[in-house]
Amino acid sequence: MSIAFDRAAVEPSFGPARAALPEAFELGRSLAGEIDRVYFVAAGSANRAMLGIKYWLEHYSPAIEVRRYFPAEFMAIDPPRLDGRTLVVLASKSGTTPETVAAAHFLKGRPCKVVAFSQYGDRPLAQAVPRHFLVGDTSESFAAMFMVMQALIGGLMAGKDDWPLADKLMASLDALPAALCDAAEQNEARAAADAREFAQDRHFYHVAAGPCFTTAYVFGVCILMEMLWLHSYPIEAAEFFHGPFEIVDKQTPLILITGEDPSRPLMERVATFCDSHAGRVMKYDSRDFAMAGIDPAIRPIVAPYILQAALKRMAAHLSVLHNQPLSTRRYMWKVAY
Amino acid sequence: MSIAFDRAAVEPSFGPARAALPEAFELGRSLAGEIDRVYFVAAGSANRAMLGIKYWLEHYSPAIEVRRYFPAEFMAIDPPRLDGRTLVVLASKSGTTPETVAAAHFLKGRPCKVVAFSQYGDRPLAQAVPRHFLVGDTSESFAAMFMVMQALIGGLMAGKDDWPLADKLMASLDALPAALCDAAEQNEARAAADAREFAQDRHFYHVAAGPCFTTAYVFGVCILMEMLWLHSYPIEAAEFFHGPFEIVDKQTPLILITGEDPSRPLMERVATFCDSHAGRVMKYDSRDFAMAGIDPAIRPIVAPYILQAALKRMAAHLSVLHNQPLSTRRYMWKVAY
Repeated sequence: MSIAFDRAAVEPSFGPARAALPEAFELGRSLAGEIDRVYFVAAGSANRAMLGIKYWLEHYSPAIEVRRYFPAEFMAIDPPRLDGRTLVVLASKSGTTPETVAAAHFLKGRPCKVVAFSQYGDRPLAQAVPRHFLVGDTSESFAAMFMVMQALIGGLMAGKDDWPLADKLMASLDALPAALCDAAEQNEARAAADAREFAQDRHFYHVAAGPCFTTAYVFGVCILMEMLWLHSYPIEAAEFFHGPFEIVDKQTPLILITGEDPSRPLMERVATFCDSHAGRVMKYDSRDFAMAGIDPAIRPIVAPYILQAALKRMAAHLSVLHNQPLSTRRYMWKVAY
Repeated sequence: MSIAFDRAAVEPSFGPARAALPEAFELGRSLAGEIDRVYFVAAGSANRAMLGIKYWLEHYSPAIEVRRYFPAEFMAIDPPRLDGRTLVVLASKSGTTPETVAAAHFLKGRPCKVVAFSQYGDRPLAQAVPRHFLVGDTSESFAAMFMVMQALIGGLMAGKDDWPLADKLMASLDALPAALCDAAEQNEARAAADAREFAQDRHFYHVAAGPCFTTAYVFGVCILMEMLWLHSYPIEAAEFFHGPFEIVDKQTPLILITGEDPSRPLMERVATFCDSHAGRVMKYDSRDFAMAGIDPAIRPIVAPYILQAALKRMAAHLSVLHNQPLSTRRYMWKVAY
């Protein structure tokens, strides 16, 4: 199988997402006067994109309440606080995730506002909501969905909190596709070497803090566990010293995923511990990437995606060494569940 | 080592927690007019007790905003929404968890209200807050802390939302210690058999939904990973079919932890899948336990602790078979970190 990084295909595939940024931002700004709450509802990687966006809302916004739900839990909890001043953000890359589509129908007739993010307009999710944004056919749908959702929330914070970074955010999101491709290309040689070094391993632990936990989950679970069937567990840096670090030994691989957000010191503490007590550590630090076109104030917001772009190259090389294409599944789309 | 369940010691050790219930409830009720937000802040098992309490707040309360933080992340995020109408709930069993104590100091001079939960009044956490509740010296500090925190939040919901289950909650919490001991005793033979069956395994996956994810994390990480150094990963039932289920095979042990809350159907779906595709499954279902003295309407709220009491007996038997007391640590309290 070919795993070469095809920049000529990848970078233009962000076109629909880039094109959607201004409209998403303007929708967020226009809703500011009508919204006090944002409830994010998605499964899998889209949910973890929301995790990072929620972090920044909590860090920056004095005015906005925020929750993040898995769709099935959202419907089970059926929160009575959901009201006309609540914006529900739904997301599903394929637009067919059954629970997310069910949540869209569940919300019909409710007083809240609903907006959905997906790749395709002719799929059930987009068809079931009053307003949607599309990122089109791209191998980088995770990052593309993040871009447009973050633009929406940036607009909301600009309108509601006079968030001062809005212009910098929008310029940086527009530059992000190229920066992601740069990160993938920059990491190619290291990714190949890391994959060879860890090709025989069947356990991986991923440690990250703050918005970078998005990357720990998406790389650790959505890729290594789901696609390569590895035992692969993301650990919150804030929890590392409260139990999980007892699993550390000289043999078990650890991937330390470090960004530039206010939670970075938590990872620096983890790295110091691992320097003494772990034996096989990969450190991926967003500071090692140039991020051309990304404003210094916005680097912390996009760092999880820069690191994901880099790590994804390691998964590609691992898939060759495991002789298992990343599209392989045992059950998903193959059996009834 | 002796691992016999010593009911004569365990049940009375809940005395301070039971005694604190009415005062915690009354504090919650008295704060109702002054509070719009509850921010839970703790690490480890205390944080996961908050996870379940937060679930019920989201399910029942139209009036209360709620967030849950790890202490180090809470301080890094430094949420600007924290105001005079916010109640911050801090918890640390030992009262010495460095980040939780730091969070208490971080909050000094802030306009929010602060209440802490711990075992001991002479430790740094209780000393650093204006108001605290103590559960004393008990091997069941996790459940004891839950009881008193849930009483506080029950009082808050009673005062703010006219929550109709308050009286039933309080009677049931008072009966919970005996019901937990019943569950431990009831599960003794099965726990011993399960431990023998899985004594050679080094990977475990735990699946749970809603408030029972508390149990999946505390049993999976705080006990099996931290104390027995097993690769042990809790999975949200809502996420199971969106990636993690690809790890399922006929050999890998799965523990399905099923409660009686609105999210129970998510676990029933997981169990059906596992009946077909997994080979080595332990099912722990709260419906198998009588829960004497627990009101039917409150069973869903305490079920995670009933299941924890049952599962903890399996950990005790595993510790004998591994010849590793549950107090064993490689790093915690032993090295600098």
